[in-house]
Amino acid sequence: MIKEVIAERLTLIGVGLIGGSLARDLKQAGAVGEVVATAKTKKTLHTALDLGVIDRAESTVEAAVDDADVVVIATPMQAMPQVLAALNSCVSEKAVLTDVGSVKQYALDAASAHLPQHISRFVPGHPIAGTENSGVAASQPNLFQDKTVILTPTAETSRDAADLVARMWRIAGAHIRTLDAKVHDNLLAATSHLPHVVAYALVDFLAQREDSEQLFELAAGGFYDFTRIASSDPVMWRDICLTNRASVLRAIKGYRAYIDQMINAIETGDSDGLLESFRRSKQSRDGALRRSGRRKT
Amino acid sequence: MIKEVIAERLTLIGVGLIGGSLARDLKQAGAVGEVVATAKTKKTLHTALDLGVIDRAESTVEAAVDDADVVVIATPMQAMPQVLAALNSCVSEKAVLTDVGSVKQYALDAASAHLPQHISRFVPGHPIAGTENSGVAASQPNLFQDKTVILTPTAETSRDAADLVARMWRIAGAHIRTLDAKVHDNLLAATSHLPHVVAYALVDFLAQREDSEQLFELAAGGFYDFTRIASSDPVMWRDICLTNRASVLRAIKGYRAYIDQMINAIETGDSDGLLESFRRSKQSRDGALRRSGRRKT
Repeated sequence: MIKEVIAERLTLIGVGLIGGSLARDLKQAGAVGEVVATAKTKKTLHTALDLGVIDRAESTVEAAVDDADVVVIATPMQAMPQVLAALNSCVSEKAVLTDVGSVKQYALDAASAHLPQHISRFVPGHPIAGTENSGVAASQPNLFQDKTVILTPTAETSRDAADLVARMWRIAGAHIRTLDAKVHDNLLAATSHLPHVVAYALVDFLAQREDSEQLFELAAGGFYDFTRIASSDPVMWRDICLTNRASVLRAIKGYRAYIDQMINAIETGDSDGLLESFRRSKQSRDGALRRSGRRKT
Repeated sequence: MIKEVIAERLTLIGVGLIGGSLARDLKQAGAVGEVVATAKTKKTLHTALDLGVIDRAESTVEAAVDDADVVVIATPMQAMPQVLAALNSCVSEKAVLTDVGSVKQYALDAASAHLPQHISRFVPGHPIAGTENSGVAASQPNLFQDKTVILTPTAETSRDAADLVARMWRIAGAHIRTLDAKVHDNLLAATSHLPHVVAYALVDFLAQREDSEQLFELAAGGFYDFTRIASSDPVMWRDICLTNRASVLRAIKGYRAYIDQMINAIETGDSDGLLESFRRSKQSRDGALRRSGRRKT
């Protein structure tokens, strides 16, 4: 197989689970020359160097992106405007820029406002992959294997830049889907952002009860699976809720209305209604699981 | 090790995931002579015989419990009154009776009403174990290993009967906890019944959207973990909601109030409030996971 080189120098702005895992795959494939990174804390950079995830650490965006061919922004959403503003004045004219954030319209808006000089080479992206663990220490090879990466280029986006970002993710094993940013945000609000809020809410609701210690002690394995995503990074999810506010609120409010229907069915003893809801849920999940190629475990 | 024999003849009323898995463990340990069963459908009994989970199948409760030493009722909750009424007139004076249902006050009330002649030998029980798969075909050895079985005997319950049921579960590898039935129902409403309703509701809420096909297609692994319990048996869960109605409603309404707080925090952009909630959730779950001996996966 011919080795495809994506970048002589790739710069990560933020090195957590996603940025770190991507760097591992690209280095493993020989698709990058040098991987440079900057991050919010020195500790993160030291860990990334120790793990061999990056080759060089820099304390400023300016030093990190010097002569970079590809820049991957992998910070929480609300850190993006400041990062983009810093990039605007120092990134080279050849560099292709992308991000890995969960909210794409916010990323586009931030780029329009803060990265005007390089907007055609900014390709918004979102890998639908991850674990509840965060930080570069949790990064792992093959995290993106057979996963979907959604790109949301606009009419302004250079075709060459988008192609390069797609090739980068394919080297990491992912499939590419292209979607409108608003459509992406609305879909992910339902399939990802809502479930995270629901899980966080459930755990904290129980944690605040007086009998919480006994509750957690008696919880079965199903409870820990159900709430796995409530162990995700709080800053990342705070930012997602606030930067995808309209879609997230629409999803939560729709869900609350459904919960109200369940309360009503239980209160009135609507046996048939409850059974029908539960059956539809089971059928939908089992069917989707089969279609997705995941087994019904 | 000295083999402990719990029953020369043990009868299962209902042979699903729980009853079938218990029978496997007891047979494997040599703790039972013959395992007899009756069930709602002939298909279930045939499968149980084919799998070697039971030794003999009977089509009526009366035939199944003839000369039984131990009777385990392992049906959905709302089938219990009828089963108990049938047992009342045919079970022998020596038999110890127990159930595996998820709602203990309902089981006690049903026994008071329908099993008056044998009430002192009825020991309500609930193994905190299971998978989202149901039916005897999903039964498996060691399902109860290191799991908790909660018993909710009353002042009327014979000490010998309770001891026998505890010994039976210990042979299957479980730890025993004794709780008041109402306390049990209130705790389980929070840790188990509420999460199931929340998960069923989430899947059906998404399934009823016009873009549901695309939603499920784009859902990540986290979504399938989160909703695993929505693949549970609909009849079982309908029955739990209706037979533990007061506690389940209290839990869901408390949870709904928490969701309202989250909606408010997102609407008003309460960044600190959201972050604090998410942090508390993560800390609570990670801490409970460590204390439970489960790893933070």
